Amino acid sequence: MLRSCTAGLRSIWALRGRREGAPRLSTDLQPARRLFSTEKVIHKDWALPNPSWSKDLKLLFDQFMKKCEDGSWERLPSYKRRSTQESEDFTTYFLDPKLGEEERLSQAQLFTRGFEDGLGFEYVIFKNNDEKRTVCLFQGGPYLQGVPGLLHGGAMATMIDIALGSCTGGAVMTANLNINFKRPVPLCSVVVINSQLDKLEGRKLFLSCNVRSVDEKTLYSEATGLFIKVDPEKRST
Amino acid sequence: MLRSCTAGLRSIWALRGRREGAPRLSTDLQPARRLFSTEKVIHKDWALPNPSWSKDLKLLFDQFMKKCEDGSWERLPSYKRRSTQESEDFTTYFLDPKLGEEERLSQAQLFTRGFEDGLGFEYVIFKNNDEKRTVCLFQGGPYLQGVPGLLHGGAMATMIDIALGSCTGGAVMTANLNINFKRPVPLCSVVVINSQLDKLEGRKLFLSCNVRSVDEKTLYSEATGLFIKVDPEKRST
Repeated sequence: MLRSCTAGLRSIWALRGRREGAPRLSTDLQPARRLFSTEKVIHKDWALPNPSWSKDLKLLFDQFMKKCEDGSWERLPSYKRRSTQESEDFTTYFLDPKLGEEERLSQAQLFTRGFEDGLGFEYVIFKNNDEKRTVCLFQGGPYLQGVPGLLHGGAMATMIDIALGSCTGGAVMTANLNINFKRPVPLCSVVVINSQLDKLEGRKLFLSCNVRSVDEKTLYSEATGLFIKVDPEKRST
Repeated sequence: MLRSCTAGLRSIWALRGRREGAPRLSTDLQPARRLFSTEKVIHKDWALPNPSWSKDLKLLFDQFMKKCEDGSWERLPSYKRRSTQESEDFTTYFLDPKLGEEERLSQAQLFTRGFEDGLGFEYVIFKNNDEKRTVCLFQGGPYLQGVPGLLHGGAMATMIDIALGSCTGGAVMTANLNINFKRPVPLCSVVVINSQLDKLEGRKLFLSCNVRSVDEKTLYSEATGLFIKVDPEKRST
């Protein structure tokens, strides 16, 4: 089944050719193929300003960068693919080697980093380790539309999943997400997601977050999440 | 803020030019600009097989198309943008005319239809109106990765939102999503989302769904959703 999907995609790209229609793929294929080799992979950090960032997003980014100067906060980098070590942890835990992970992973990239600059998810996360909380600054682009003029609920759920996960540290899997959508988010606007770790029970992490406008006056969403720490020593059954 | 975002995107695309870097945008811009004009817009239906569909997805598609022959089931078409009438309903309800919706919407498209064939969300939904339920066949492509080799939880949440919404009929907004992720979904595999309307209370619709493997042996997720019917006569406050 997986091989069939990969073969199908390859035939499409072969028909299109490199220059026409799929320019991102030809370059993006290379780093992923090296995930399980010893070759050095140079990753680009996507959690930095680009020209699509609005004035609000740039302003908030600068404010949090200032907070990072005394070490109380840190900016979390973001890549299209995970680090080799983390990939190996997850591979050991979840994937059956018989399925041919290397082939399956060759085209893969992080869901939220697959769009051209400004069209999809523009975000950066800052973490306060002492307070066990993070702040995610998020601008949802025009390719994330649900209802006309508004951000898709699935795009908001995706960012909530990522924001909550950023509070956990290390390898985790989402077990539950419970989201209350209070107000729709206008497309292209900037929102702030405040997340915190509420409780830790063994491998279970209980988290919560809220999504607000930049001026904090509008509460868009509230959510809770249950995440489970992945133990690389154990394979799932 | 919104104008600033749009202006930022335009400057990027202007720098790139039409042929280099943003081939999809130059063509995609045209229909959206016509959303609020009287010009006829020709929409492509994306809920039909393309060469990236795996054997499993094509087989299930054919089985459900056969069920449609006696009228008990119907295939729901899917477009990158909503119909003019529905756009107008939502615009009346949610958007402030002072914000300049036409400009904001000019680049917008449905979140799940913004990827090249096979890279993102490949899906089709069949509806049984008498039984108030839908079946969504979904193949998540390599650009929807979370943990290496696995589908991102946010991509699954997005499809659950869409699948539940497909049971409602008409214009609705998601108020709550509660998702239990039981097992991770392998990237590029096909899953089946069975959704049903459980209860209707005024404008509130209570729905539930489960996500299973094609052979039905693996339960990947279970979810409930609360959706609210949009009343075009009333503006939100």
